[in-house]
Amino acid sequence: MEDSVTTTPQAPVESISLAFLGGTGDQGRGLAFRFARAGHPVIIGSRSEERARTVASLLGHHVQGMANRDAAREASVVIAAVPFEGHGDLLAPLAPELAGKILVDCVNPLGFDDRGAYPLPVPEGSAAEQAAALLPDSRVVAAFHHVSAVLLLDPEVESMDLDVLVLGDNRAATDLVQALAGRIPGVRGVYAGRLRNCAQIEALTANLVSINRRYKAHAGIRITDI
Amino acid sequence: MEDSVTTTPQAPVESISLAFLGGTGDQGRGLAFRFARAGHPVIIGSRSEERARTVASLLGHHVQGMANRDAAREASVVIAAVPFEGHGDLLAPLAPELAGKILVDCVNPLGFDDRGAYPLPVPEGSAAEQAAALLPDSRVVAAFHHVSAVLLLDPEVESMDLDVLVLGDNRAATDLVQALAGRIPGVRGVYAGRLRNCAQIEALTANLVSINRRYKAHAGIRITDI
Repeated sequence: MEDSVTTTPQAPVESISLAFLGGTGDQGRGLAFRFARAGHPVIIGSRSEERARTVASLLGHHVQGMANRDAAREASVVIAAVPFEGHGDLLAPLAPELAGKILVDCVNPLGFDDRGAYPLPVPEGSAAEQAAALLPDSRVVAAFHHVSAVLLLDPEVESMDLDVLVLGDNRAATDLVQALAGRIPGVRGVYAGRLRNCAQIEALTANLVSINRRYKAHAGIRITDI
Repeated sequence: MEDSVTTTPQAPVESISLAFLGGTGDQGRGLAFRFARAGHPVIIGSRSEERARTVASLLGHHVQGMANRDAAREASVVIAAVPFEGHGDLLAPLAPELAGKILVDCVNPLGFDDRGAYPLPVPEGSAAEQAAALLPDSRVVAAFHHVSAVLLLDPEVESMDLDVLVLGDNRAATDLVQALAGRIPGVRGVYAGRLRNCAQIEALTANLVSINRRYKAHAGIRITDI
């Protein structure tokens, strides 16, 4: 897998272009807004190019809108921000465009019922491992699971008080995504293990939903002693 | 299950007696030390009464040592701090002694190999749900998964910088365990969901192991915005 990866972004982190696949949802729009505001070239991808363009224009900051395939081709680093239901169907046909790139997966496979959120079983173990199975020529990194879309999208929120946990099996790729996380004011990117330990990070979002309900908060996580 | 629970500790939280089953291991000894230092009556339980007494005497602070069954009978709140392998075999025969009591489960079902720690599958979903299945007349609360035994056992460490995530299906029981967590200086007990969302909290310990390796730390977790 390492051998097939040939193009590592060499640019300084602040100039790396980012595409958000399925980026018209709250999480994708929120992250796109933050990275665009931090000065990155940002593309919103969607099944519908028209919808992508509409959402992009509303975000401002020169965000572009494209069909998912074009967005995946154009950007240096690609972020999958789709609901889990469409995750595999989105990524599988984009394997050629994503070959040699870092694919950042921030998908939380969760179900909801009257008692709140709970983790959905994933045959591959986690959404990120599913992505890795579908994209053998990409480096898959998992990150940005726990950022509140509400806070991301609120232009009054200047800084966010949380660590982004970054998981992956390739050190250069996790280092880069940690640096990208740090581009959001207040956020620190923290390495938190290999992809085989990603299921619980995705599932932890269900606990944050419980915490948000109990405490009427937009809870995040900080790692202490580092 | 609620109906069968008749004895709720009515005492102020600071006088609640605590028993640590399998309390001769690092996590049990560490927690026992902290609660004894905070003024709680504390019992170390072990399969061997003699070993329990030896460990108890080394901890000081009037800690007592007993066989697990006697410890479970004597204390108001009982904490299971055994390795996962012996978890079910320890708890099942103690169901009569634990009936009507709160059983706090802090067991992390983890395996280790040359790449670090990883979660073990648990048929009931999590160690805490296993305990709940074995102890239908007790209220099972999950907590204290992420506290570093090294820090707990270090008498020079006065205060610990972490939140203890507390999970359970009975509000009075989780409230009490949150208050108990707060008896350790620096620690805050945070409600983090029902037992069905406990597997990922137990498994998250594997990520903390990864973080500790990468950053040479004794990492803990804080929840932000609450």
